[in-house]
Amino acid sequence: MTKFRYLGINECLENLIKVVEIVIEPITINLSESLDMIAYNNIVSPIDIPPYDRSAVDGYAICGEATTSASPNNPIPLVIKHGSNKISCNEAAPISTGDRLPLGADAVIMFEDTYTDGTKNIVYVMRSVPKYANVSRVGEDIRRGDTIVEKGRLIRPWHIAAMAAIGLSKIRVYRKIRVGVVTIGSELRDGGIEIYSEGGIIDITSKLIVASLQEYRFIEPKWYGIVEDDEDKIASLIRRAVSEDDIVITTGGTGPSNRDLTFNALSLLEKDMRINVISRGVAMRPGRPTTIATINGKPLFMLSGFPVAAYIALRVLVIPFIARFLDIKGIEPIEVPATLTKRIAGSVGYDVFARIKAYRCGDSMCAEPMAIHGSGVLKTLLSSNAILRIDRNLEGFDRGEKVWIQLL
Amino acid sequence: MTKFRYLGINECLENLIKVVEIVIEPITINLSESLDMIAYNNIVSPIDIPPYDRSAVDGYAICGEATTSASPNNPIPLVIKHGSNKISCNEAAPISTGDRLPLGADAVIMFEDTYTDGTKNIVYVMRSVPKYANVSRVGEDIRRGDTIVEKGRLIRPWHIAAMAAIGLSKIRVYRKIRVGVVTIGSELRDGGIEIYSEGGIIDITSKLIVASLQEYRFIEPKWYGIVEDDEDKIASLIRRAVSEDDIVITTGGTGPSNRDLTFNALSLLEKDMRINVISRGVAMRPGRPTTIATINGKPLFMLSGFPVAAYIALRVLVIPFIARFLDIKGIEPIEVPATLTKRIAGSVGYDVFARIKAYRCGDSMCAEPMAIHGSGVLKTLLSSNAILRIDRNLEGFDRGEKVWIQLL
Repeated sequence: MTKFRYLGINECLENLIKVVEIVIEPITINLSESLDMIAYNNIVSPIDIPPYDRSAVDGYAICGEATTSASPNNPIPLVIKHGSNKISCNEAAPISTGDRLPLGADAVIMFEDTYTDGTKNIVYVMRSVPKYANVSRVGEDIRRGDTIVEKGRLIRPWHIAAMAAIGLSKIRVYRKIRVGVVTIGSELRDGGIEIYSEGGIIDITSKLIVASLQEYRFIEPKWYGIVEDDEDKIASLIRRAVSEDDIVITTGGTGPSNRDLTFNALSLLEKDMRINVISRGVAMRPGRPTTIATINGKPLFMLSGFPVAAYIALRVLVIPFIARFLDIKGIEPIEVPATLTKRIAGSVGYDVFARIKAYRCGDSMCAEPMAIHGSGVLKTLLSSNAILRIDRNLEGFDRGEKVWIQLL
Repeated sequence: MTKFRYLGINECLENLIKVVEIVIEPITINLSESLDMIAYNNIVSPIDIPPYDRSAVDGYAICGEATTSASPNNPIPLVIKHGSNKISCNEAAPISTGDRLPLGADAVIMFEDTYTDGTKNIVYVMRSVPKYANVSRVGEDIRRGDTIVEKGRLIRPWHIAAMAAIGLSKIRVYRKIRVGVVTIGSELRDGGIEIYSEGGIIDITSKLIVASLQEYRFIEPKWYGIVEDDEDKIASLIRRAVSEDDIVITTGGTGPSNRDLTFNALSLLEKDMRINVISRGVAMRPGRPTTIATINGKPLFMLSGFPVAAYIALRVLVIPFIARFLDIKGIEPIEVPATLTKRIAGSVGYDVFARIKAYRCGDSMCAEPMAIHGSGVLKTLLSSNAILRIDRNLEGFDRGEKVWIQLL
């Protein structure tokens, strides 16, 4: 059994990226189905938007300079010209929001700043409007050649609007990333509370993992069920998951004890698969016994059976691996500044992830570290709303210190 | 035509909630499909979790007091007892993580703090462990009677894990809220860039609205297409949407001009439907011409055709209406403190929503207001990542002032 050696998080990710061999192909989908998917290429505008100067209001298209001296006491009369794409400076053309300005016009006056006499042929302008007033200029929104969505960008609603504006109805995105999740543990069961009276334990960690993956719409998680503490059976289920998915996560069966079955199961696969152990243990708390390997070039993350430890490992290893591998922009955790309400100790040599209750206090955010009773305590996840990372070369943070917390 | 009167956002929402008559029924779904849905009732734990004291590590279950004087120099011998659910204080029972403690045991010592002699019948304890060391106490995670998910709570991954822990496999949530979206405007088209050379405009606002609604998995948006500037046709499409959906949104055809067709279309429906105008105009910028009504008790939000104005109205009127109506907890915008990099003017009498570029600067966040060239400018949405609300009784904020911004 390889000895544990706690590699730093960043080193793990770098080493994994170097050897991984998966391919996430592009697919073409309807723009209307692209929310929260990952753009496969840069999307560059072939046109200016607006494509021409257009009116931003309902009113009359005019020459701005014709109104220089206009006021309610000195209304300027202009001849109303209908249905022409050209005016001269003594004319005014009725125009609707979004319409192209006729030639000769360079500004729009709103209806409410004008009045007409009985003849309906003359409009009186009561206000001076400068050149380009109430006009959306050509290219004001998007310039021809602008990159409106970068390769790797998480597609949000405004990207969809911008892509629609340049006439796209289908786009290329990465297909969904298939992540298999395997639960390991003879004591674990899927079902109701009768399990407890039978001496079993309900498998909740795989549900936390699967739901956390579901939060990313570009990931397609698949749960393979529970496998008992039997190296052959573990190996066989991992083999199946590796053949079907891009990434495999196991939960449970880890730890520096004689029960570290998941790791042992790897050696059973070595006969006919290429196994590459990236890290046996990661310098993080919780999540220290995490093992990372590749099987035939596909990443295998062997996470703790404890829900909080597995969740943290998912956040700091699995998701960041995917983000780096596809160079995804826009899924970084939201970090906000906050003031610690009490001292919190780190653990030199390990990145520590502490659960935080963040709340508004005056004109800043306060961050209250939650009591930590081991990595299995679901209650802290239910009542926390943020995570604080204490770097592995820090002894901790003092009460009142300013820190950056990640919102959940 | 009813005159515009700009009612405050909060007043609009309160008045709407009072008269609205929609019912969002509960449905029973699998726990594994409940992510981001809204809990229909309080979910209370019928049991303690853990349901009994259990081991948090792999090791030997022992009496803590038997180890008081133990050290590497003074190992304490204990008799290994297999397969019994009871030990005495001179015994040690091998135990795995998650196993129930045998009667008589009150602590667990890890394997690595012990050694065994050749006989394999005696284990030597090299460390003193206090009572409850390495034990997960009964009820430590969740107590019987604890509310683990409140009615109206947006279901996140840890809620799913907690519900699984109390043995649930199906839960009741609100069914998806059906929101119909109708685009109004003869100049608008759905399609490619050839539309611009034909003098048309691509409808992007409905796409922004639909995608923004899709971000909430408990909402099911439906786009009804584009209807031309014809009051009969507008009325007929609104009628259809009202019959099929819980909430209807129109975009375009608004504004205090002679083209305010959407509002006029309402009077055509009055013959056989109950129309209740909640607010003709809202005291907000952008989004001032927004009209809110109910038709047969269903909310109708008549939003601007300008993408940014419509998006803001969606964020501050439509989503907050849904949140208040179902008393949803967990979808409030994330507000973070930031320092303004330049002065920004408000507009007394109107809540102003300014687009912000937020970024880290030193140990706080900086908020840079984006240039505002009217409500149609998509570019500000593409490059902004936050919104600042300037209350309608404020003249604005100074450079260097601390503000709360909402992250997008």
